Amino acid sequence: MGIVVQKYGGSSVADATSIKRVAQRIVATKKAGHDVVVVVSAMGDTTDELIDLANQVSPLPPGRELDMLLTAGERISMAVLAMAIGNLGQEARSFTGSQAGVITDSEHGRAKIIDVTPSRIEAALAEGAIAIVAGFQGVSQTTKDITTLGRGGSDTTAVALAAALHAEVCEIYTDVDGIFTADPRIVPNARQIPRISYEEMLEMAANGAKILHLRCVEYARRNDMPIHVRSSFSDKVGTWVVKADDVVVHQAEENGVNTMEQAIISGVAHDRSEAKITVVGVPDKVGFAAAILQALADAQINIDMVVQNVSAAATALTDISFTLPRADGQTAMTALARLKDEVGYERLQYDDSVGKVSIVGAGMRSSPGITAKFFRSLADAGVNIEMISTSEIRISVIVMENQIDAAVNAAHTAFDLGTDEVEAVVYGGTGR
Amino acid sequence: MGIVVQKYGGSSVADATSIKRVAQRIVATKKAGHDVVVVVSAMGDTTDELIDLANQVSPLPPGRELDMLLTAGERISMAVLAMAIGNLGQEARSFTGSQAGVITDSEHGRAKIIDVTPSRIEAALAEGAIAIVAGFQGVSQTTKDITTLGRGGSDTTAVALAAALHAEVCEIYTDVDGIFTADPRIVPNARQIPRISYEEMLEMAANGAKILHLRCVEYARRNDMPIHVRSSFSDKVGTWVVKADDVVVHQAEENGVNTMEQAIISGVAHDRSEAKITVVGVPDKVGFAAAILQALADAQINIDMVVQNVSAAATALTDISFTLPRADGQTAMTALARLKDEVGYERLQYDDSVGKVSIVGAGMRSSPGITAKFFRSLADAGVNIEMISTSEIRISVIVMENQIDAAVNAAHTAFDLGTDEVEAVVYGGTGR
Repeated sequence: MGIVVQKYGGSSVADATSIKRVAQRIVATKKAGHDVVVVVSAMGDTTDELIDLANQVSPLPPGRELDMLLTAGERISMAVLAMAIGNLGQEARSFTGSQAGVITDSEHGRAKIIDVTPSRIEAALAEGAIAIVAGFQGVSQTTKDITTLGRGGSDTTAVALAAALHAEVCEIYTDVDGIFTADPRIVPNARQIPRISYEEMLEMAANGAKILHLRCVEYARRNDMPIHVRSSFSDKVGTWVVKADDVVVHQAEENGVNTMEQAIISGVAHDRSEAKITVVGVPDKVGFAAAILQALADAQINIDMVVQNVSAAATALTDISFTLPRADGQTAMTALARLKDEVGYERLQYDDSVGKVSIVGAGMRSSPGITAKFFRSLADAGVNIEMISTSEIRISVIVMENQIDAAVNAAHTAFDLGTDEVEAVVYGGTGR
Repeated sequence: MGIVVQKYGGSSVADATSIKRVAQRIVATKKAGHDVVVVVSAMGDTTDELIDLANQVSPLPPGRELDMLLTAGERISMAVLAMAIGNLGQEARSFTGSQAGVITDSEHGRAKIIDVTPSRIEAALAEGAIAIVAGFQGVSQTTKDITTLGRGGSDTTAVALAAALHAEVCEIYTDVDGIFTADPRIVPNARQIPRISYEEMLEMAANGAKILHLRCVEYARRNDMPIHVRSSFSDKVGTWVVKADDVVVHQAEENGVNTMEQAIISGVAHDRSEAKITVVGVPDKVGFAAAILQALADAQINIDMVVQNVSAAATALTDISFTLPRADGQTAMTALARLKDEVGYERLQYDDSVGKVSIVGAGMRSSPGITAKFFRSLADAGVNIEMISTSEIRISVIVMENQIDAAVNAAHTAFDLGTDEVEAVVYGGTGR
């Protein structure tokens, strides 16, 4: 049997008791005959506590030092986990990101993995040991300084190591059973998705599904590394994230038929972290929209949807609306305010009581009428659509925040995604 | 001006406030024109907390993993200290033991420094930065695993780095003003020693003085690196630990005379951590004493003094007494009990209510009568001597524990070591 990479987030290793539980799961995998590599996050709230400590001595700690500080968190969890495994009679050796060969660029706090050279991990496996690797961290190729990968970093470490080691699977352990057709806190009969394609998972993650981070899925897609998202609290099979062909084959097998029919819609995602800004009364001239978007780009703001209303011919004025993360709202308003004289718009409107609801499904490529059905379900539920954007396999709408739950439920029902049973599950994030 | 290496112990960086205070001292040294390298221990009780955590998952954690865990402590303190310095407008870069080039053997938990190759430190200094280095840790030359140096490790790191960098001085900051002629908690008029030789400091450290650790002084002696022991809470000059010639020259200068007269006795040390074991009724035959000492050596016990009583001719039986650390008492008794049949001794006596009092002074080499004066002072104070051992520059006696204070005061007064003023100082250890 081959190599299995398992990743455990902070909530799975929050204290000594949790660590002992995780150790038993790891040892069971080893005893089943696999070579096991474990990627681990910092224990519970360690990272937040370290950030608090940093802020007590410096309002804006240098990135190099903040990375040095934060990587202490995984150093603790990985060593303690290795000890707990040792106490169960299996040898485990812990490795920092640097020791594990996770080579990155030099962007402290959001470093990108350039290469993975896991020779020490391979040597440990060859000697029969379980390798424990610090997630979220690496070493800069140029400066040799310690770096961190930013949000979702441990998931990315796990997938990158799995790819470099040609592992059979990268198992991402979390506190829920897998990926669901919608957030079960909003849709009680949401169904666990057995298989989903990388592309669909990317759209889900980019549009509010919190379980897997975009970068990790992107890395898995590029390297065709299957991800198995599952609960560290049960032995249930979770959700497999695989390439699209494997999803189709699997569904055909399940149905016992030879059709290559795909589920049209895989799930409904939602995102409460967006805000909407409207620039009202922009002169409808060439270059003014570009100037507005350039100002936002200069301020390092990633905007999501952009809509420009048709110009009312009488006035030759137009409105430009866009959405962005709420956290960037103040920065964006400041950047735009500086443009008022240059562009000559009338005023700015800021609205942070909006949200985004998206349906995602590879099948919509070949199924006409999906948009109509989605919008009809929203209308029937009394939900007003403020903005729309689409990709090949996703349709997103901006709605009022207090209508998100209604919109998610309406879409979920319209596309018949639910089960008859109601899962008793708590849906939450994965730490980092 | 040259390089100054400063070492701050755990109590000097116990919290954010202490770290900011230390940062100011470091920046002041830098602004005075020195290149500054700082060695730092883990914050306050961090190390003990990490050991507690380890014990929650494993009764006997593997040394490799325990070292990985404990080194997280310095990683935190050094990064936070670098941030605090950065916040004062000076660039500081933190380095792990491995990054600083502290190469050790592979004995986890008590690794010895083999080599120091501080090229990254030199590069940081050349670019005008302050270098912050994790104390207590290094990297194994053969396995590339992280190691820790054991007790006194951070002091040793500081001296080793100072030697490798050809620093002007290695400043060891602690919570007292320097080395005293005796523990001021016992002898209120104990005097701070301005200069002491490596050899005397070694004897003081080996016999209970807690401020500097043996290994660090030994390393400094071998490399002729001056140590300046001083308080991190004041700007007072502390105690210089230097080679013997420099002590003499300095004293001659101070007295304004050309004599090369040395202080006969530098200080009085005491140690409450000893126990005494007596093997009663050993047959007085060749090889039996050796068998007893071999059994203790096999049990990894370092014994201190050994005394064999003159054999009483009538019985051909003798008593062998020795002292050892109290912590090893149980192990030693078990090892000796196994020898009972082989050696045929009568019984074992264990006494942990003893202590050691030592007078140390390079001048005793050339001064007859020191032993008589010491013993006379003890007798006058009603202190009974149980065992005696001497070196060229030290005389130690084992006394009853409840007579230690009386013995220290008697010796201190007999050799006229005190001042007229009583120092208001709290005397404590240095962490690690």
